[in-house]
Amino acid sequence: MATIKDVARLAEVSTATVSRVLNRNGYVHPETKVRVAKAIEQLNYRPNDVARSLFKGRSKMIALFVPDIMNPFFPELARAVEDMTRQHDYTFVLCNTDDDPDKEIAYVEALKQKSLDGIVIVSSTMSGDYIKNFEIPVIALDRILHPSLSSVTVNNRAGSRQAVDYLKEIGCERIAHIAGPEHASNAKQRLDGYLDAVKEEDWFKYSYVEYGEYHFEEAKEATKRLLEKHPEIDGLFVANDLMGVGALKAAQAMGIDVPGQLSIIAFDGITLGETTSPTLTTMAQPIYKIGARAADMLIRQIEQQERTKQTEEFTVELIERESTKRRDGS
Amino acid sequence: MATIKDVARLAEVSTATVSRVLNRNGYVHPETKVRVAKAIEQLNYRPNDVARSLFKGRSKMIALFVPDIMNPFFPELARAVEDMTRQHDYTFVLCNTDDDPDKEIAYVEALKQKSLDGIVIVSSTMSGDYIKNFEIPVIALDRILHPSLSSVTVNNRAGSRQAVDYLKEIGCERIAHIAGPEHASNAKQRLDGYLDAVKEEDWFKYSYVEYGEYHFEEAKEATKRLLEKHPEIDGLFVANDLMGVGALKAAQAMGIDVPGQLSIIAFDGITLGETTSPTLTTMAQPIYKIGARAADMLIRQIEQQERTKQTEEFTVELIERESTKRRDGS
Repeated sequence: MATIKDVARLAEVSTATVSRVLNRNGYVHPETKVRVAKAIEQLNYRPNDVARSLFKGRSKMIALFVPDIMNPFFPELARAVEDMTRQHDYTFVLCNTDDDPDKEIAYVEALKQKSLDGIVIVSSTMSGDYIKNFEIPVIALDRILHPSLSSVTVNNRAGSRQAVDYLKEIGCERIAHIAGPEHASNAKQRLDGYLDAVKEEDWFKYSYVEYGEYHFEEAKEATKRLLEKHPEIDGLFVANDLMGVGALKAAQAMGIDVPGQLSIIAFDGITLGETTSPTLTTMAQPIYKIGARAADMLIRQIEQQERTKQTEEFTVELIERESTKRRDGS
Repeated sequence: MATIKDVARLAEVSTATVSRVLNRNGYVHPETKVRVAKAIEQLNYRPNDVARSLFKGRSKMIALFVPDIMNPFFPELARAVEDMTRQHDYTFVLCNTDDDPDKEIAYVEALKQKSLDGIVIVSSTMSGDYIKNFEIPVIALDRILHPSLSSVTVNNRAGSRQAVDYLKEIGCERIAHIAGPEHASNAKQRLDGYLDAVKEEDWFKYSYVEYGEYHFEEAKEATKRLLEKHPEIDGLFVANDLMGVGALKAAQAMGIDVPGQLSIIAFDGITLGETTSPTLTTMAQPIYKIGARAADMLIRQIEQQERTKQTEEFTVELIERESTKRRDGS
């Protein structure tokens, strides 16, 4: 594969001149331009990202830490972070932490040795003391990790309240919640949103809440427990879509008709929710936007060496699909 | 956070001694052991992976390149590669290449600058000339990339033939195929397996093959085209599960009953196929095993500095679910 040096040699110019031609910046004499263009053609040189990145010197690297690569929400988020980092010529790597603080720290330390430039992190578990002493820029995404960190999140509490209010509006009278892990800030906010909406109800004392840990299998089990104990439940707000699909499967396995007997609404807006039958009603996050925004924030912090704290909260949106239905049958 | 050096200082021993105590290897005087144990307790030192990895010196790093992070097959594969690499104290990073050769090369070059130790790569597009000159060990996973590389794959052709033979056995009389991208070796093998099974049929001349590029949306479109043109089709072999779900959705949108009018079998065995209604019959790959085997092969090549070429082919297994049904109605 021809390199920029080969092009420079053949065109009898410096590599800097070739670069100016390639990037169309700075003055280059028209005759020189033609010579460079001919050399590029003759050598079949492709001024691709490789060459550009090598020429610019040390390749910069950004990592995204996610707690569960098997939850399709995170690949969708990664897609956005990656697109943005690549627009800025950064190398993007994805690390799966299993929400395990030891593993998170091991990754940070190992990648610092590799001159990592910054991290976008989705975490609920990393210790505050450790975070305060990060030496590279870090953006918390999806979950608030520490008050000192910049973050990009959504209106989890208000969005969850909206989900439950929607279930009420379509006529659900006993509404339960499958919650995420207690230590995750967004799971707590979604639970709070549910409680905001139901705490005045006379059935509130039955505490229709089970924990599904943001996992498919745990959510199936939790839903089964809940519906066996409380067959009167006719509405279910599930804290993420992956668990929402688990809840749907559990209900169907018990012979409960969704949405005929039970309406289910979840949270996230991942593509998975469109593949089930019935498809899943959800509070959709602007997944691509929040991922891209976090990456953008991180790159600004890296390049401008400024570390002012920024927080940005996006708004979720109700997407009505087939897993919810008005109780009057309409 | 206390470090191993703090422990050594407090216990008045060398860090090597602390390490021997932590890792339970080499002789340490019993009294010294007690002193180290007390220092660890007093400082609340956690001999976690960080410390172990730092102590061992330069952190080693392995990357997995996947063509499409949004296809759940790859997160499932990544899970296995990661577990194996972590067992061997390597840092594991995941890179999404979009099956774009420029992007693949950019990643390789950027990560080499970061002293990457080896790559497990799922690719159909990287050029042979480039591959021959890799300076670090590389294992091809899922797809054969170049004859010179070690590889871990499955019996795509025979497994695909088995899928089509199964459709015949349950009574399907007109069997079509939604194929993957023409340049991917495993897609070509799966198409060949389909052709092996149907080339003697008198309807073979109608060429019931459409391309879905291993993508959900493309597969929906391809299935729609196919079924509109050939309503006589009663069996469909789809080259991967993600496209299988797309095919299922397309058929349902057209009012075709699956499996009543059309049986669908796909390939991969990802969890997604269990979430649809009907659930998806598939030729399941031993996803975890092949990922772990590729990682193990890579680590051996890195650590033993041996580069003998190895190839390993695993066998797929038929999992009957609800998307296929015997034609006689039983």
